[in-house]
Amino acid sequence: MRAVQICAYDGKPESISLAELPVPRPGSGQVLVRVSASPINPSDLMFLRGVYGFKKPLPAVPGFEGSGTVVESGGGTMSRFLKGRRVACAAVDPKSSHGMWAEYVVTSAKSCIPLSKGVTMEQGAMMLVNPLTAWALVDTARRGHHKAIVQTAAASALGKMVVKLGRKFSIPVINVVRRVEQVSILEAMSAENVLNSNDEGFDRNLKKLCHDLGATIGFEAVSGEMSGRILRAQPDGSELLVYGALSLSATQIDPMSLIFEGKRVRGFWLSEWLRHRNVVSQVKIGRHVQGLLGDDLKTEIHARLPLEQVGSALEQYAANMTSGKILLMP
Amino acid sequence: MRAVQICAYDGKPESISLAELPVPRPGSGQVLVRVSASPINPSDLMFLRGVYGFKKPLPAVPGFEGSGTVVESGGGTMSRFLKGRRVACAAVDPKSSHGMWAEYVVTSAKSCIPLSKGVTMEQGAMMLVNPLTAWALVDTARRGHHKAIVQTAAASALGKMVVKLGRKFSIPVINVVRRVEQVSILEAMSAENVLNSNDEGFDRNLKKLCHDLGATIGFEAVSGEMSGRILRAQPDGSELLVYGALSLSATQIDPMSLIFEGKRVRGFWLSEWLRHRNVVSQVKIGRHVQGLLGDDLKTEIHARLPLEQVGSALEQYAANMTSGKILLMP
Repeated sequence: MRAVQICAYDGKPESISLAELPVPRPGSGQVLVRVSASPINPSDLMFLRGVYGFKKPLPAVPGFEGSGTVVESGGGTMSRFLKGRRVACAAVDPKSSHGMWAEYVVTSAKSCIPLSKGVTMEQGAMMLVNPLTAWALVDTARRGHHKAIVQTAAASALGKMVVKLGRKFSIPVINVVRRVEQVSILEAMSAENVLNSNDEGFDRNLKKLCHDLGATIGFEAVSGEMSGRILRAQPDGSELLVYGALSLSATQIDPMSLIFEGKRVRGFWLSEWLRHRNVVSQVKIGRHVQGLLGDDLKTEIHARLPLEQVGSALEQYAANMTSGKILLMP
Repeated sequence: MRAVQICAYDGKPESISLAELPVPRPGSGQVLVRVSASPINPSDLMFLRGVYGFKKPLPAVPGFEGSGTVVESGGGTMSRFLKGRRVACAAVDPKSSHGMWAEYVVTSAKSCIPLSKGVTMEQGAMMLVNPLTAWALVDTARRGHHKAIVQTAAASALGKMVVKLGRKFSIPVINVVRRVEQVSILEAMSAENVLNSNDEGFDRNLKKLCHDLGATIGFEAVSGEMSGRILRAQPDGSELLVYGALSLSATQIDPMSLIFEGKRVRGFWLSEWLRHRNVVSQVKIGRHVQGLLGDDLKTEIHARLPLEQVGSALEQYAANMTSGKILLMP
């Protein structure tokens, strides 16, 4: 089979190539999936540069999520149940070199969610990383009885979903972006409370909005100085959930926010969040999210490219992450 | 009365002077205290530089804690009860310009703890900021069922108290310092697990110790890069309590520690911790801590200086914070 393969975690184009590999065989509890589509996400870029939370053994096939058809079961009830079905799936086992940017992938049956009839392979391919994370974040805000949310990277695919879910559940969302084009993108979808962090008076305006609306929970994808600016603007006792580090910098927090204002910082990772849900609740959430994939949780697609063009796909995506996803189509 | 006074929050020697002020009058719920002794703490230095959690109206008298005798009550049950008694007290009302580096101070009766017979005015003067904080931090570790503690600035007055309380309650403490003399100070008191952050292999050794002993709670007084180094070394799911910022830098955290390792960062402030305890529990803790002031929670005194020498006192303290406290004796 053809697969994208990396030989080093340096993010350099010469470390990424198209390889001809044997089709892998599923073990017990695993399935073999013929891949239909797999997106490039910010987490994939971090993985390629070796700055993601874990590294797979090299050489490794990148690609954390995608969709496809289960063509073989390695044994086990769940695996047999999935055989022949269309699934959304993830390849996030740190011990395995398999990934979704390939014609075939072996993954654990537990990492697969059967796709409902109305869901296309393309939308299904992008269901886990963004829609499910957006859902989980907004769900965390609802369960915590927070009156409002403040989020960074608001014009990202995930950020836009948070905007829509906020509207759906009547939770005001304060949207922070870093570029003027991103303000336009959000205003075009009638998002309210949009602030550009490069504008004069940003910190003052953000603080006023956070206090007026009661944004005691924050979703942070940028890190670096941005984390501290958001936390400083939030009311006393607020918490900031860091789920990304687009700036590739350390999360910088004003110690006074922590000590004197009772504010807290923690991380958010979908895999961990899901692990704390039981199977019934996972299935429920999966169905609920799929029901919204055509609407509030729909991901815009910028381009569809074959595996051969992975280099150009990565370049296009890195140059402009907010104009829609790039799908690799094996 | 004579009092130290500042006219600006720039920490410059010329902004600090000795002034002749009228003796203040206590209002309802307040007491007038004739001050016996008041230490210089790191929080005072931050206050002078305007980087503490709040600023008092200028001109202001510095000094957050001290001891003395209540000479006048402004009315109210607690105030009348305190009249004539020896007390430890704090002057931490952001709206008041009063402070402890003066012959007299007006403070809220709630900020006073009557001193037991055996407690000297000198030890009583230093009871709140260090001994009570050390007690509260170790108490937090005990209530959270943490197997071990990791702390920075371990050779500070507070750090040494944590070492002794850890021994008393059989909780291993991992002690991080930044200078070789501080290693000697801790070894002289038979502290175990002492690491110098400037030593080669520090991060590797710290990680091994934190994992071996199960140091899932950290007490951090330095901030800057140190916070991230400690959190990175702790086991998954750990928490870091930031209670100081000796480096005067932002708390820098690796976002990967937050996202993929379930680690959390929050602040610790004694005033806030006490506010969540009821009066009975406050009195109990006060008695317990006073019982240890002659022993595990004893503070070493480096020098006693009159108010007139505040400039030299500040210089001496800033030059070497670990050789014992400097007491101002009005």
